[in-house]
Amino acid sequence: MRTPKRVLSLLEHEDKFLIVTHINPDGDAIGSALALSLALESMGKETFVYDRDPVPRFYEFLPGHNRFRPDLKNILPVDPMLILLDCNSPARAAIDEYDFRYSLVIDHHETETDFGDTRWIKQEAAATGLMIYFLIKSLGVTMTKDMAVNLYTAISVDTGTFRYSNTTAEVLRASADLIESGAEPNRIADYLYETWDMKRFHLFVATLNTLEIKDDMAMIHITKEMFRKTGTRAEDTENFANFPRVIRSVKISALLRELGNGEWKVSLRSRGDVNVARVAELFGGGGHRNAAGYKMRAELGSVKEALRKASKKFS
Amino acid sequence: MRTPKRVLSLLEHEDKFLIVTHINPDGDAIGSALALSLALESMGKETFVYDRDPVPRFYEFLPGHNRFRPDLKNILPVDPMLILLDCNSPARAAIDEYDFRYSLVIDHHETETDFGDTRWIKQEAAATGLMIYFLIKSLGVTMTKDMAVNLYTAISVDTGTFRYSNTTAEVLRASADLIESGAEPNRIADYLYETWDMKRFHLFVATLNTLEIKDDMAMIHITKEMFRKTGTRAEDTENFANFPRVIRSVKISALLRELGNGEWKVSLRSRGDVNVARVAELFGGGGHRNAAGYKMRAELGSVKEALRKASKKFS
Repeated sequence: MRTPKRVLSLLEHEDKFLIVTHINPDGDAIGSALALSLALESMGKETFVYDRDPVPRFYEFLPGHNRFRPDLKNILPVDPMLILLDCNSPARAAIDEYDFRYSLVIDHHETETDFGDTRWIKQEAAATGLMIYFLIKSLGVTMTKDMAVNLYTAISVDTGTFRYSNTTAEVLRASADLIESGAEPNRIADYLYETWDMKRFHLFVATLNTLEIKDDMAMIHITKEMFRKTGTRAEDTENFANFPRVIRSVKISALLRELGNGEWKVSLRSRGDVNVARVAELFGGGGHRNAAGYKMRAELGSVKEALRKASKKFS
Repeated sequence: MRTPKRVLSLLEHEDKFLIVTHINPDGDAIGSALALSLALESMGKETFVYDRDPVPRFYEFLPGHNRFRPDLKNILPVDPMLILLDCNSPARAAIDEYDFRYSLVIDHHETETDFGDTRWIKQEAAATGLMIYFLIKSLGVTMTKDMAVNLYTAISVDTGTFRYSNTTAEVLRASADLIESGAEPNRIADYLYETWDMKRFHLFVATLNTLEIKDDMAMIHITKEMFRKTGTRAEDTENFANFPRVIRSVKISALLRELGNGEWKVSLRSRGDVNVARVAELFGGGGHRNAAGYKMRAELGSVKEALRKASKKFS
């Protein structure tokens, strides 16, 4: 991957940068922002890192995670150049009400607007972290261990640690370099996948015990009672919806979570061409082809029945 | 990694090879054996591939999996050179009652005997598949897609698809090459991790329900009755031993599987520096630092108690 000359010359000639990423930041957004901040500072630049939302505790192992600041209004008077990372519209970062002297966009998502004085958008890149890796190399900056850990994590999160179809030879070679710069694959994977507490494990087992499969759809559910019994909360269910996809015959996997007031949150996951966003839209929800969701107020049995009927149209 | 000249010259000068790997073959054993067989045949050699046990259905996606033959006695009269792969003692492959004209051992496990006229044993190699990758390169053989799929799978299985601590820059660079030769990371990960049948899922849930944690050790077990009730077999338990490691506090995870005659097979997995090979050796078993096993004839409760006592010495 080649970094555009224009991007390099901007970073070389400017002195103050405001690095901003999307709301509810994930590992690619956070890791990319931190690695870029560290690299620019090693060049003697001043950087500010901002996100509307805090870094999830889950990602607090990332070196420099406390660089993220919540106080955009205190930074703006410095008049930095904006670098928008891992998204390409100011609305996705909740900064659409501000003006910036100059803006650079670095992203790998589909374009939503034409925002940005300079735009480096590569949809075929597996992760923004991969673009930042090549950018740092092109800048001639020494890749420190802290940068490497951030970028290896960013790439891991967006490739399912090299299991998704965006895993290319280039992804593995860049990651090999990052290991040589100090990223430890096992430690990072442990942080990403092996830090459940016991409560979460008990909730997981209880949830799997509710599995029902009909045709190519798997459903699992979590009642408020199950949360209460295990002492868990909604945030403990991260990735549960995916799990039934390990079963060969399952094309759609649904997690139904009781919210209260008789309402259920339905999270849908699918394989390949099955588009669950279409299913979710029938119930006023939305999402992407392979991950979508909606809410419904009804008895558990009726929520399941309605979902089963709806999904038959799309699988 | 350099392939010893002696190994290359043996493969170049001999004409007939019997490739044998350990009983209950895993992905590294099977993938390495098939890739080596395909490579030698592309050089015009004759190869026979043998394992005492059949290839698990799970691995039937591997190109050439039907090369494995059960009839060692029909092969021996051809008088081939033996290549013992992914183990280094003839007992581990159940061929200790036979004599061979010449034997070459290629393995990455700790040595159990000094068997082998030529031995290439690299304990620091992440997988035998990685050694075979370098061997095929050194032989100057074109890496075909079929070889690449076998080797990528072998490396994936032994590194937890790049999540274990044996994942080095060299491992990722070799795997990048294998992608360029036709291995598809997403397809292989799907085959390895997302092709469970319903029976296996039910066994998994039943197994998780047996979880017991004390200190930093998690134990799960599977009785013959559980196999019977779910209609499953030992091969359906692949990777189950790893799962309890998702819990932050767990440093050693043990799966106890009832064999019959009052015997239990104990599979140990650990994190980081905790060496479960040492634990397994106390019971006459063996393995690697983070993955080891042994058998024990006793009541379930006594097997657990003995394991708990033994592991305290090493964690």
